[in-house]
This record gives sequence, structure tokens and C-alpha cells, in this order.
Amino acid sequence: MKRAVVLLSGGLDSATTLAVARSEGYDTIALSFRYGQRHAIELEAAGAVARQLGASRHEIIDIDLRSIGGSALTADLPVPTGRSRSELESGIPITYVPARNTIFLSFGLAWCEVLGTGDLFIGVNSLDYSGYPDCRPEYIQAFEAMANLATRASVEGSLRYRIHAPLLSSTKAEIIRRGRALGVDYSLTRSCYDPDLHGRACGRCDSCQLRLRGFAEAGVTDPAPYQGPRDP
Amino acid sequence: MKRAVVLLSGGLDSATTLAVARSEGYDTIALSFRYGQRHAIELEAAGAVARQLGASRHEIIDIDLRSIGGSALTADLPVPTGRSRSELESGIPITYVPARNTIFLSFGLAWCEVLGTGDLFIGVNSLDYSGYPDCRPEYIQAFEAMANLATRASVEGSLRYRIHAPLLSSTKAEIIRRGRALGVDYSLTRSCYDPDLHGRACGRCDSCQLRLRGFAEAGVTDPAPYQGPRDP
Repeated sequence: MKRAVVLLSGGLDSATTLAVARSEGYDTIALSFRYGQRHAIELEAAGAVARQLGASRHEIIDIDLRSIGGSALTADLPVPTGRSRSELESGIPITYVPARNTIFLSFGLAWCEVLGTGDLFIGVNSLDYSGYPDCRPEYIQAFEAMANLATRASVEGSLRYRIHAPLLSSTKAEIIRRGRALGVDYSLTRSCYDPDLHGRACGRCDSCQLRLRGFAEAGVTDPAPYQGPRDP
Repeated sequence: MKRAVVLLSGGLDSATTLAVARSEGYDTIALSFRYGQRHAIELEAAGAVARQLGASRHEIIDIDLRSIGGSALTADLPVPTGRSRSELESGIPITYVPARNTIFLSFGLAWCEVLGTGDLFIGVNSLDYSGYPDCRPEYIQAFEAMANLATRASVEGSLRYRIHAPLLSSTKAEIIRRGRALGVDYSLTRSCYDPDLHGRACGRCDSCQLRLRGFAEAGVTDPAPYQGPRDP
């Protein structure tokens, strides 16, 4: 059976990506990171998603990005809330974590190499809204090119690495529709940058706004728990 | 003052690389990794080298590569010893750690981004002997290309990343001569894959053999401590 490593944060996009990998017939190893994020509830969500979608393994890797800092997701900086659509669409937000996807993909590459598979899935998405440099197609291509020079297989010619980013050009609404068709239980997923202790989303941060707008455009109610009223 | 991040393992090559960066006028932040290596004595050596060569900071990042496995340096596999020169020069040894340089450079990139510098030094070396795919010039170029698409600066056009690999085409003997001219105290450095509890080198593993051959070719005695007789 063909095998793939899937980066899984516990959010909406990575859950859908895992479902896509499963639907393409891959035996999947889900990889999550405890990286000092404010929203560590993500990791419980990732475990639940991995089980629901039938991943064979779920590995959590500890890396401390807090010592590096530079982001509201890992440092003691306020997460922006209530931003307008045009604010969301301009510039790189403070929630960007320096080189995060590069670090995550590097660990994914190491796992691929040890498992002997060339298929690595990541749920990045460049449309709709992102503002994160490491979610752009040209970045993903450059990582793939580098990966194909980085490993034992690249010298021995035994394997080609492919970074699968099946959601790269989808809107949030399209992602949600696709995931629902593939049986993703979105009540298990968590996207909020600043959830409460019960894991309930704030409904106001950038990530919540994008998620809620996506569900609204898909004509579906978000089944995940929220603390109070939902913004968009 | 211009600033650089320098990956520092505590071995001969990375110590020399730090000295090169210092000689080029960089204020240097040395970065080491506690990655589950057998030879954790490296990290003490890295600290001593950072102090000797005047790095401004020495950061140690914890990442667990043991959970990934796949190498004699992180798993419970025997380190090869007493291999001949032709054995050393053929194939990729079991001491290769999957995607290690990619992971290390990714963390280096994150530090560069937070510090606002584009200069990242790594002591890889493709000549003499290596066999490691992630020590080749084409790999370093591909990582640099990827880095220049990965970060905030790459979107805002504010900074260009450069991966400096000043030892890429040097023999071990040339590296040692260069480092001595720059004042590197090689008695502080550790290269052995399997040192004893006192940090004394085995003298027989691939890394010791390369090091000892380099010193011999440079016409200098290695000042680092060894457990017993030295092989080449």
C-alpha cells in the first residue's frame, strides 16, 4: 500500500488534506508539532481528526519555537481580533511564525526518508486569505526542488519527493465542501488562534473570521464550539 | 554591525566556519542542537568554541530526532570503525541522519528572520570525504533558493538570504590550516561519533579517521584528547 506523511495541525485545512490523502488511497502517517503554540488544544484536535479519518499513526514532535519568538502565536503578544476583510487581505499578520512551514516540512521530509516514501502532504492554501509567505505555490515548488537534493534517495536515485498541497488554490468554502464530501467531521477541528480553556473558539481572530466566512459561503453551519456570538 | 547566524556543532568544520564568519566582521549568533545525538559532548565543545571565538550568543535548540530514527548517530546502532579510505569514500554511511541539515538550516532561517539578518553560515564540506547528500553544493543552492521564497522578507523584498558554506570545496587539511591561521583552538573541538564519558575521541570511527588524516596532511598534531592510539 502506498504511504504518505501528512502534516496535521488539527485545523480545518490540514484535516481536509488528510481526507484527500486517504481518498487517494494512501496509508497515512499524521505528523503534528508541539511548538509552543498558544493554541495547544490543536494537538488534541489533531489526534481526534487522525482517528476519525483513519490515519495509521499520529506522531507529535516537540520543538520549541518560543525561544525563537517573532510571532503572536508563540510569544506573549496579543492576537489581533475583529479585523476587516481588507485588513485581513493586506500584509503579513503578526500571527505569522518565522519559517514555520519550512521547519515542519523539514521534519516531514525526515519522516518520509526514514519510511521510504516520497509523498508529503501539507494543507497550505494561498487563496482566500493567507498573507503567509510559506503558503505560496512558488515556495512549495522550491521546497520540493530542495527536498529532491537533500536526501539519501536523491543521491541513489531511488525515490522522488513530491510535496502535495491539494488545497493550494481552493477557497475556504471549496475546502469545506470538499472535506464534507470526503466525510471530514469538522466539529473535531480547531482553527482559533486564541481558544478558551474548553477549546471553544473566540469567533473574532483572523483564523475564526476566515473559517466562519468559509462556512457561510459554503452554506453550512460550523459544527465546532464557539465561546459566544460569531463575527462574520 | 552586520550579523550572522552560524550553525555550530562543536566539531572541527563548524568551529572553523565560525572563525571565518568572525574574520569577515560578523557579529555572530551560534546555534547548536540537542537532537538526541550519541555524542552530546559536542554541545559542551560548541559552548567552549563559541566563547573562544567571540560569538555574541550561543543558543541550544532541543529537537528530538531520535523519534524519527534512521541513523547510527541517533538510534541504537553500532557506529562503524576502522573503515578503509575506499570504504569511507563509497556510499552514504549509516551515520547519515535523515534530513538533518535541512532541519538545522530551517531553524537557522527562523533565527535569521527574527534577527533581521540574511546571513546564515554552515560548515558543510563536500570534498575530502562526506557521502552526505545534504553537504553538496547543489543542495546548498537549492536551500538558499527556497529560503528566499519562505519568509516575510521574501514577500516584502527587504532582505536576501545567503547560505554561506565557506568550507564547501576545502580538504580537511586546508580547513585545519585556515582555522589555525584564524586562531581556532582545535583542542576544544570534538568530532568523534562515539566518544567516551570523558569526551575523549575513539580514533577509529569515520569522523576520527577523517580528522586525523586531515591533521596529518596539514603536518600538525591534533590537540584534542583521544582514548588511545590514533588510527591513520
